[in-house]
Amino acid sequence: MSLIVVGSVAYDGVETPHGKVDRMLGGAATYIALAAGYFTPVKIVAVVGDDFAKEDVDLLASRQIDLEGMGRVPGGKTFFWAGVYSADMNDRTTLRTDLNVFADFNPKLPESYRSEPYLFLGNIQPELQRSVREQMRSVKLTGGDTMNYWINDFRPQLLETLKAWDFLLINDSEARLLSGEQNLRRAAAKILEMGPHTLIIKRGEYGAVLFRNGCHFMAPGYLLEDVFDPTGAGDSFAGGFIGYLAGRGVAVNNGNLDFAELKRAVIYGSVMGSFCCEKFGVDRFRTLTREEIEARYHEFETCTAF
Amino acid sequence: MSLIVVGSVAYDGVETPHGKVDRMLGGAATYIALAAGYFTPVKIVAVVGDDFAKEDVDLLASRQIDLEGMGRVPGGKTFFWAGVYSADMNDRTTLRTDLNVFADFNPKLPESYRSEPYLFLGNIQPELQRSVREQMRSVKLTGGDTMNYWINDFRPQLLETLKAWDFLLINDSEARLLSGEQNLRRAAAKILEMGPHTLIIKRGEYGAVLFRNGCHFMAPGYLLEDVFDPTGAGDSFAGGFIGYLAGRGVAVNNGNLDFAELKRAVIYGSVMGSFCCEKFGVDRFRTLTREEIEARYHEFETCTAF
Repeated sequence: MSLIVVGSVAYDGVETPHGKVDRMLGGAATYIALAAGYFTPVKIVAVVGDDFAKEDVDLLASRQIDLEGMGRVPGGKTFFWAGVYSADMNDRTTLRTDLNVFADFNPKLPESYRSEPYLFLGNIQPELQRSVREQMRSVKLTGGDTMNYWINDFRPQLLETLKAWDFLLINDSEARLLSGEQNLRRAAAKILEMGPHTLIIKRGEYGAVLFRNGCHFMAPGYLLEDVFDPTGAGDSFAGGFIGYLAGRGVAVNNGNLDFAELKRAVIYGSVMGSFCCEKFGVDRFRTLTREEIEARYHEFETCTAF
Repeated sequence: MSLIVVGSVAYDGVETPHGKVDRMLGGAATYIALAAGYFTPVKIVAVVGDDFAKEDVDLLASRQIDLEGMGRVPGGKTFFWAGVYSADMNDRTTLRTDLNVFADFNPKLPESYRSEPYLFLGNIQPELQRSVREQMRSVKLTGGDTMNYWINDFRPQLLETLKAWDFLLINDSEARLLSGEQNLRRAAAKILEMGPHTLIIKRGEYGAVLFRNGCHFMAPGYLLEDVFDPTGAGDSFAGGFIGYLAGRGVAVNNGNLDFAELKRAVIYGSVMGSFCCEKFGVDRFRTLTREEIEARYHEFETCTAF
């Protein structure tokens, strides 16, 4: 019972008010897989160049993340992104995007991946997301992410792709752009007519809102004392969310999806996103334990119950 | 067992993307009193000019809001403020501030007010807030609001005033300015060393956080489908918060203040702030019922429990 995660594996250069790292492991699929790996076995579908370091392979492999689906292009270079955050870390400016081998990413799933039940489609071209979904034979829960660029410039393809998804997990500005509605509740209602029956809207430090069947659930963001680097927080949220559901075997059953489990998944998403910000890049996941995750989950309970 | 509310009673001119009203009843004390009035008897300390309309007196009086402490200056004009909101209503620009009779506001409490147990000091000059506090003989719970101007230009006076308060209720940017800390949790820790043992930080549409004794409680903002006019939402929050506590007889007892009741008070604050936005100015409070308030409180429970 594994989770298939599709998306970028990359190197990032990041500057925040707390420091600067020129090159470190990054990419959406990396964060999603590392976060989800605390809850469920994960198999990655991605592509890297032959500059991808053995220590980074080793980190992923040490978490029982299957890398058979991670292609390596001889002579190619791994996707590189660099950015700098504003003083309050609520905005960031991209300094460099070298797609490199990611420009020709055309995911082909290994045979051993195609019968897995859980699929998370990270932010890539919508038609590639659709192609991956179609390669899966018996998926029980499919969802994913997208971004402004695809919403603006690949809208028909994105809308076609979304029809086959159970859930969509995007941030508030993407939800507004996709729906054309400024108000979040109206935006959610419109998006839930596009295909996914479940929608999670991330609001950065302010948490997330889950929408389904005319109900919604609001999770606050964890109040961190120190935010070192927000890079990957949204992807770590996604990993915690889908990882928890996969680990619990939660799937659509006769059109039903357990709302109580979905709410817990959103809290685990917030938990994983909050840990991600505590160190640079993926560093927090090098030491994070399941016990710390459970302790923070219970802190969420304490801080929100009334 | 009444609540004394001190602050501005005003006329406002407001423009939002949903419409424009040239002159309508406003002012912090007005919103606080109207919201608190659903939970407890209220007595207002304020000043108006002789242009203050009978229909506005009647509205307040109809809610059993005592107006003995609302001075009327013959030949004077009531405080007038006008502003325009941005398209997403997260920012507003002040177009006009005519202090008028409010410029010489020097609150003197009627004798019948001085033995009441609850006091909310709306946003006025800190030394005036202190003077009011000192006129009270047996107050059991004191708290209030302030703003950037007093934090920047009347800092010593404000710090002296805060020493006698049980709680401070401000928004996130004010908390950052007052503490000199960008991070909300660190900001709260610093402010709790200034005097108030309880701090509520409002975060606009994102809700509020209550800090006390090393604990915190996070309340989300209600997801409104239509925000017509955010004017007064923060003051309505304050009214719901202190009104609930006063109505329940919650006060400091041997240094203790019931945290469970404080959490409920924060939710009632959010509830009252959310209703305020549904119509222009105070209009929503003309028709709002206690039953609607309870229904929304329960909606908060449903949307946050996990």
